Amino acid sequence: MSIAFLDDADDPRVADYRDIRERDLTGRRGLFIAEGEVVLNMLLSPASLCRPRSVLMAKHRIEQRRDLLARVPDGVPIYAASQPVLDRIAGFDLHRGMLAVGEKPPGPDLDALLAAMPERAVVLAVSGVGNHDNMGGLFRNAAAFGAAAVLRDDRCCDPFYRKAIRVSVGAVLRTPTVAAPSLEALIQALEQAGFDILALTPRAETPLKAVKGLGRQAVLVGSEGPGLPAGTLARLRTVGMPMAGGFDSLNVATAAALALHQICGGPEA
Amino acid sequence: MSIAFLDDADDPRVADYRDIRERDLTGRRGLFIAEGEVVLNMLLSPASLCRPRSVLMAKHRIEQRRDLLARVPDGVPIYAASQPVLDRIAGFDLHRGMLAVGEKPPGPDLDALLAAMPERAVVLAVSGVGNHDNMGGLFRNAAAFGAAAVLRDDRCCDPFYRKAIRVSVGAVLRTPTVAAPSLEALIQALEQAGFDILALTPRAETPLKAVKGLGRQAVLVGSEGPGLPAGTLARLRTVGMPMAGGFDSLNVATAAALALHQICGGPEA
Repeated sequence: MSIAFLDDADDPRVADYRDIRERDLTGRRGLFIAEGEVVLNMLLSPASLCRPRSVLMAKHRIEQRRDLLARVPDGVPIYAASQPVLDRIAGFDLHRGMLAVGEKPPGPDLDALLAAMPERAVVLAVSGVGNHDNMGGLFRNAAAFGAAAVLRDDRCCDPFYRKAIRVSVGAVLRTPTVAAPSLEALIQALEQAGFDILALTPRAETPLKAVKGLGRQAVLVGSEGPGLPAGTLARLRTVGMPMAGGFDSLNVATAAALALHQICGGPEA
Repeated sequence: MSIAFLDDADDPRVADYRDIRERDLTGRRGLFIAEGEVVLNMLLSPASLCRPRSVLMAKHRIEQRRDLLARVPDGVPIYAASQPVLDRIAGFDLHRGMLAVGEKPPGPDLDALLAAMPERAVVLAVSGVGNHDNMGGLFRNAAAFGAAAVLRDDRCCDPFYRKAIRVSVGAVLRTPTVAAPSLEALIQALEQAGFDILALTPRAETPLKAVKGLGRQAVLVGSEGPGLPAGTLARLRTVGMPMAGGFDSLNVATAAALALHQICGGPEA
């Protein structure tokens, strides 16, 4: 393991890390920022679908992170700096003390991805979720229940934003994901691959508890607030949970977790 | 409805709103800050257990919020200011444009609260959750499934912090809640009142799907990471969800939602 020590926040070797809070929301040429020990652990694990390009960390944390650093592949540079220099590079107070730049995996082909799945498979399909916390939570829950992929439509935010990755506790880096050109295209691809689509909505015809895990299934969720378009709901099987009188519906990631729990594993599934 | 217009960020009538971001984490003499339309709607609804003490909002939002303001009780002052003055009062950029100071409800007596519940009742019991997002999510999910109360031990954060209330979409203001002096005292009170305690843990003996909704039941959750103490788990019925191989456990509020969904309402409960 070879570590390069930096004294200068303007060092061009760490240009990708500069002002990440501001720049996180802009395109990054197929790159992403991974932050914190949990996420870096995932990035450097065999389960990761992403390659690290470099690592940047606080000098004073090298000793306690030696095991993790030992897993950085040969040829991937590790940079270390004092906490103040690190904070200046990142543009904010970087309590977590570890960052990496990673390369997004090549987006799989949607039809090929679905066709290659086993006859028993569950995927999570997401439409119009623009909030990074919710997107991260959706990936976390998909991974927790072993969903085979997270499929997005064109109105979803990028799950590779720093905060979404962090909230997902790294699940974004190990879960196959692809953005379909539209919700219609996503539904069509799922139907063509023989997936039974369960569209989650508070105004559902089928109670979630009546649904069994069987064959190829897709849990489809829309954004909080507007939810899935009425036209989409009208032609799909709608599934939901009875809510206590008049209370706001659940967070979208929580709703997805309930559906995934219902159909993935467990004695009654 | 009478509205007082303020030009001066230092006006003593809005001292309770000053620098709320910094002061939010300190005690407030039984008061709390409510933020945003959703939360104020709850504070001013008949379901609320809390009394508003005053309202502060952006001048330019008065027209569009007239219905909500009409529900402010007589004698509760409404203050309005320009956005820049409002931002100076609050100490940060107040996009949501509406604040209120409310009075925390008197904490009910734990034993009396439990004794008064019907023979079929579900409560959520929480130990050691110090994160305001998680606390807010727990209240939101408790309300969504109609849990009768959220009971905390002494190692939980205050749910009346601004951010927890916001994440709860106002559920903190309508859900009976009480802090027990310890987890042991909480468990004892529940057992004395005839509650069957389901202790959630990833290493559980009973799969959640095997649990039925029946009688008086308490879902007990611990903090993310350490979870519930081993000694507590050893003497309670433990319940959990099968997780996909090796992945991090669920967020605590999500885990609670799964358990509440399992035992509250629905055709199979």
